[in-house]
Amino acid sequence: MQNEDRLKVQALSDIAHLKVHGRTTGHLSPLTLFWTGSSVELNAQGSELWIEVEVNYEQYEPWISVVINAVPVSRQMLKAGRYWVCIFRGMDKAAIKNVRIVKDVQAMSADSGCLMQIHAVKFDGEFTPIEEKPYRIEFIGDSITSGEGAIGAKAETDWIPMWFSAIDNYTAMTAEALNAEYRVLSQSGWGVLSSWDNNPFANLPAYYEQVCGLLTGENNKALGAHEKNDFDSWQPDVVVVNLGTNDGGAFHSSEWVDTVTGKAYKQRLKEDGTYDEEDVKAFEEAVVRFLIKIRKYNPNARLIWAYGMLGLPMMPAIYRAVNAYNMLTGDKQVSVFQLPNTIDETLGARQHPGRLAHEKAARELTGYIKEVLRSSKP
Amino acid sequence: MQNEDRLKVQALSDIAHLKVHGRTTGHLSPLTLFWTGSSVELNAQGSELWIEVEVNYEQYEPWISVVINAVPVSRQMLKAGRYWVCIFRGMDKAAIKNVRIVKDVQAMSADSGCLMQIHAVKFDGEFTPIEEKPYRIEFIGDSITSGEGAIGAKAETDWIPMWFSAIDNYTAMTAEALNAEYRVLSQSGWGVLSSWDNNPFANLPAYYEQVCGLLTGENNKALGAHEKNDFDSWQPDVVVVNLGTNDGGAFHSSEWVDTVTGKAYKQRLKEDGTYDEEDVKAFEEAVVRFLIKIRKYNPNARLIWAYGMLGLPMMPAIYRAVNAYNMLTGDKQVSVFQLPNTIDETLGARQHPGRLAHEKAARELTGYIKEVLRSSKP
Amino acid sequence: MQNEDRLKVQALSDIAHLKVHGRTTGHLSPLTLFWTGSSVELNAQGSELWIEVEVNYEQYEPWISVVINAVPVSRQMLKAGRYWVCIFRGMDKAAIKNVRIVKDVQAMSADSGCLMQIHAVKFDGEFTPIEEKPYRIEFIGDSITSGEGAIGAKAETDWIPMWFSAIDNYTAMTAEALNAEYRVLSQSGWGVLSSWDNNPFANLPAYYEQVCGLLTGENNKALGAHEKNDFDSWQPDVVVVNLGTNDGGAFHSSEWVDTVTGKAYKQRLKEDGTYDEEDVKAFEEAVVRFLIKIRKYNPNARLIWAYGMLGLPMMPAIYRAVNAYNMLTGDKQVSVFQLPNTIDETLGARQHPGRLAHEKAARELTGYIKEVLRSSKP
Amino acid sequence: MQNEDRLKVQALSDIAHLKVHGRTTGHLSPLTLFWTGSSVELNAQGSELWIEVEVNYEQYEPWISVVINAVPVSRQMLKAGRYWVCIFRGMDKAAIKNVRIVKDVQAMSADSGCLMQIHAVKFDGEFTPIEEKPYRIEFIGDSITSGEGAIGAKAETDWIPMWFSAIDNYTAMTAEALNAEYRVLSQSGWGVLSSWDNNPFANLPAYYEQVCGLLTGENNKALGAHEKNDFDSWQPDVVVVNLGTNDGGAFHSSEWVDTVTGKAYKQRLKEDGTYDEEDVKAFEEAVVRFLIKIRKYNPNARLIWAYGMLGLPMMPAIYRAVNAYNMLTGDKQVSVFQLPNTIDETLGARQHPGRLAHEKAARELTGYIKEVLRSSKP
Repeated sequence: MQNEDRLKVQALSDIAHLKVHGRTTGHLSPLTLFWTGSSVELNAQGSELWIEVEVNYEQYEPWISVVINAVPVSRQMLKAGRYWVCIFRGMDKAAIKNVRIVKDVQAMSADSGCLMQIHAVKFDGEFTPIEEKPYRIEFIGDSITSGEGAIGAKAETDWIPMWFSAIDNYTAMTAEALNAEYRVLSQSGWGVLSSWDNNPFANLPAYYEQVCGLLTGENNKALGAHEKNDFDSWQPDVVVVNLGTNDGGAFHSSEWVDTVTGKAYKQRLKEDGTYDEEDVKAFEEAVVRFLIKIRKYNPNARLIWAYGMLGLPMMPAIYRAVNAYNMLTGDKQVSVFQLPNTIDETLGARQHPGRLAHEKAARELTGYIKEVLRSSKP
Repeated sequence: MQNEDRLKVQALSDIAHLKVHGRTTGHLSPLTLFWTGSSVELNAQGSELWIEVEVNYEQYEPWISVVINAVPVSRQMLKAGRYWVCIFRGMDKAAIKNVRIVKDVQAMSADSGCLMQIHAVKFDGEFTPIEEKPYRIEFIGDSITSGEGAIGAKAETDWIPMWFSAIDNYTAMTAEALNAEYRVLSQSGWGVLSSWDNNPFANLPAYYEQVCGLLTGENNKALGAHEKNDFDSWQPDVVVVNLGTNDGGAFHSSEWVDTVTGKAYKQRLKEDGTYDEEDVKAFEEAVVRFLIKIRKYNPNARLIWAYGMLGLPMMPAIYRAVNAYNMLTGDKQVSVFQLPNTIDETLGARQHPGRLAHEKAARELTGYIKEVLRSSKP
Repeated sequence: MQNEDRLKVQALSDIAHLKVHGRTTGHLSPLTLFWTGSSVELNAQGSELWIEVEVNYEQYEPWISVVINAVPVSRQMLKAGRYWVCIFRGMDKAAIKNVRIVKDVQAMSADSGCLMQIHAVKFDGEFTPIEEKPYRIEFIGDSITSGEGAIGAKAETDWIPMWFSAIDNYTAMTAEALNAEYRVLSQSGWGVLSSWDNNPFANLPAYYEQVCGLLTGENNKALGAHEKNDFDSWQPDVVVVNLGTNDGGAFHSSEWVDTVTGKAYKQRLKEDGTYDEEDVKAFEEAVVRFLIKIRKYNPNARLIWAYGMLGLPMMPAIYRAVNAYNMLTGDKQVSVFQLPNTIDETLGARQHPGRLAHEKAARELTGYIKEVLRSSKP
Repeated sequence: MQNEDRLKVQALSDIAHLKVHGRTTGHLSPLTLFWTGSSVELNAQGSELWIEVEVNYEQYEPWISVVINAVPVSRQMLKAGRYWVCIFRGMDKAAIKNVRIVKDVQAMSADSGCLMQIHAVKFDGEFTPIEEKPYRIEFIGDSITSGEGAIGAKAETDWIPMWFSAIDNYTAMTAEALNAEYRVLSQSGWGVLSSWDNNPFANLPAYYEQVCGLLTGENNKALGAHEKNDFDSWQPDVVVVNLGTNDGGAFHSSEWVDTVTGKAYKQRLKEDGTYDEEDVKAFEEAVVRFLIKIRKYNPNARLIWAYGMLGLPMMPAIYRAVNAYNMLTGDKQVSVFQLPNTIDETLGARQHPGRLAHEKAARELTGYIKEVLRSSKP
């Protein structure tokens, strides 16, 4: 029916002007997108553009959103296989379209078969240079930062990729408002010290140095997910850590038993319902250690611990920890910021922040980052 | 990789509980969706659902949106071919999901090859009965009603399906707010008497009695697009006509010459810039004739001429015409309603109303329809 | 206590730079403010300012609002007597403050004793010239335009000055948004042909040519309320007529009997609940006559009939009347604009539009007036 | 003119059903209102109500707002003297009006002559019982809590009562949203340890135990301002302390020299622009001491330190101090809450939070207090 002969296939690695967002290995043949919000960006001067994806999964399929000239225009599930997806067609050949193909779902630590790759593009035009943005932000978080529940009806309860969004997400909104490039490292249920259910291995700090170390399985290893991240290649101006919500939850969950060692883990509550001092102290030490690690790899970034979209119980501990870190290191470029709580009107699916909660958080966080950027000179 | 054996293929025609929205021929093997906003609705109790589509086009490809439990979760271009699209997977098998697959692009009078069909579903559960909604609304309009420009950046100028939306659209929003079923008949550039460029054949009234008579080509004919619409099977409580914008534009466009007869058509301006009386009178007569026709097929509906989202120049003529119709027929169940104008803040792509303009229009129109439904007893 | 010796009393008539808003007789010794929204404006360079008022009433006391640098800062009832009111004190002597003292209540046709006058000011500085605004708007209306119910709880039912506002009022808001001077002629319950209760004398057109002809009693006459208005001294760019709501109400009210002549007046409903043709025709003729009269005194103004804040029943008749006027006179500088209806969320006191309804109306009307000013050259 | 004979004068002390809000001495003959937001509340069943005020000042005159059925309807400056102010007239005699006359300006430590008293009412009806509200909140703060700049144009710079508001104020809005009685203790420029200009005597804690101890002069003393407050008579459920903004400012101000002792006071900055450890520690100790004092007099209240409407620089110190207090006392009913920062769009007069900033703060604080009340059992 339509004639596609005029379209020329190019491997990603052959494209001169191409921007990859999100931590990757640097390989482009193909490119593997690991984290939510990671994307390929092109300035496409031509009438029709396709991308060739390769997709796999045991349980949790990838989704993508397509953003054209900064407006999301498509969002779709990617089924398994290697195939072509049309990004646009029938457009003015002469106009330059800024295009981003964004992974809309978090890295899936629970599905070692989950894979999303881009091999090539099919296009009838030229790719033009992409302007550098003035700022770079790295976000580190849990389900909130993964955009879990940011899309979907309030009644939804399934834990499936469909209810995750990298677009209706405070990370994307904040970056947009600040005209910043951004990266996201996030995992639902995980924390600084442990996951919501006391699993001490489900913590983001342990994997901070790797490209996407929380992914499991031989395939992900072969793809380079466990390689050391090349921090030199992308230094953020700001690192936002939005963790603590699951560490707080752990106090209210059952113990987690390591089936290998038989050892049980549990953040304990005291009889009066408050946190056990020793256990909350362990959380604080984990925060301090994580800040030290982040600083090690990002010597010039402002570090912001942003917390509060699902309640504030860990805030005193976070402030104590950041204070302790500050005393220990003399590092002044670190602060704490309270994000607005999610209320009935702003709730999304799965009892998580909805789009309105993300918009509100982004508005406040943007204001705060502007101030931090203005007042501090790293 | 994933095992899909447990999924059972069913032809649409074999599904007991299925709702088709939008004017169709009644055929389900396969079902052809013609108009924007037309859709298939299912209450799906099962974990995984696919639909088999058949798609074609010369120029303008179809797009669909997927709405689950009243929330849009996916929107994608459909490329040519016959293939399966996954609607959801991995969900709780016991929960009933209300699912609508919505055609997101208008019927394409300019592309006789444009085709969107649904053949079958692949599912692992049961379809349960779908509750009737208390109201039915028919919308008749032009590009505004087609949602042209409701999605996309302001800078976009291409006339392509990507910038059309049946979801970010006052029709869907109004129906949602009123808990109503709805149908849309719309065509960009068309009017009551003529199109924006004075083509007298590009008018909605001429095709009102057919299923989708404005489609051309043998294939559409064979599919039944030109069959007489079965008005008895779906009687609206309200018919909203949002036409006049292109009829107004015609006064400012060049003449249109019929290449067969050589006859030229032109709505003329007088020297002082106002409308030629005779020509505006012809518009008014077209409005009267259209109201008579609508009333003929919808004896009990309230008729509302809603106009104003892109300026008000034809409003006096519309009021005169509705008045004349009223005098002629004694029909009291007809009224005029001014929709809010689109302003800079609410503008979308292609100089058309954006999502915010549609939201505002829907809010006002909903209030007005509520009053009309309350006060009038047909 | 505080020393006021440094304050110098000046009669209004001695102030070089003084602006009086609203129709008045031109007398300044003292100045009588008749209509709602009328005011005295000063650019006051000094630290402390008082005004000397003279106030009287049988039933309905005047209220004023004080607006400093465009922000309302005080609103108060004026009790009977002649006395000084402090407008500001303790301010920087060098800074120039733009001050308006605004009558916050409509002219009271039902209280011939109602009086509000300003005699003099007491000040320690200089009055500086007041910049001319680029536009002038005249508003003519009923209770909506008088701001009845724009302030106060929804539960309020008393018909008293306290619930009237010239500030939380679409007239003031529209003028502010357009940077326009404005005047208001309005009376609660009145219409074009008759009042809500069929009194044919309670109509605004009958008094349009006088300064404030609807006021009664010897005192008002002596004050010049019945004098011919000096139209030459203030020619508006736009005249907004917001009338028809009470004319519509008259169809649903009992007859009004003239106690002098014994004649009964009543706008009749037909058995089917629609308006009697003859009676609605009488309304339309009254609209035409009023437009002719307005045009006579405002040869270059754009005339806008704006209607709809409390429902739309008279809109078809208004459109017919404006059309008839247009046919009769060839006058193109007249149009109709539908104002947004008041809904539960925007309702104020006494079942009238609240502040939110006025804000919404002002927003829409402002947009429309901008277009009218842009497109038409008088 | 109007006959006021039917009005009966009653001393405040003779009114059976009367509520006084705000800290007072208990005296009603007359009643002295000291703090901003303090008020007299009446349920007035009658048609006309006046109050007799006695007012004085050297520099800073009092203002009042009148709130009827929860809606502010009047706001006026009170000039010096003893006189009657009409609150309402012409109302339905049978209806019960809830009336509050609210002091709209803070206690004026800088004007020992400032006085606002109410002696009596003049009324033609009965006062009916006033329902108890379910909650009581005490607010302690500085200029933000005094509503400085909450009213007036952005350009205003004078420090005068006109720009203070107890109505467009987060305290009133929060109390309204929670259906709570409330009291305010506040003073512009003051802090926990010192004022913005390092005056160590200008701190709220020093005067917490007195009715209104920060007022000076023999007259205030005679009126009982320095009496011990009767804490037993009004125990709050929540105490909100919004202090720290001026303590932060002190680091950036010149030293303050005690003219009696010659001693200089200064919160010092280090060379790198951060706070001197010793000085910030002194602030923290002041916070701890204040919390101990508040707890002493309010054994069952939840204490909330709410801070952030004009930036966050003291937040780490506040968290440290609250933590230290918690460690010292074991008191769990104390927490910290970050209020939303004021931005350009929400700025009011005098570089202070405007009405929109107060609305936003109230919305967030209300949500937080609801949670605190739900989760904690004192």
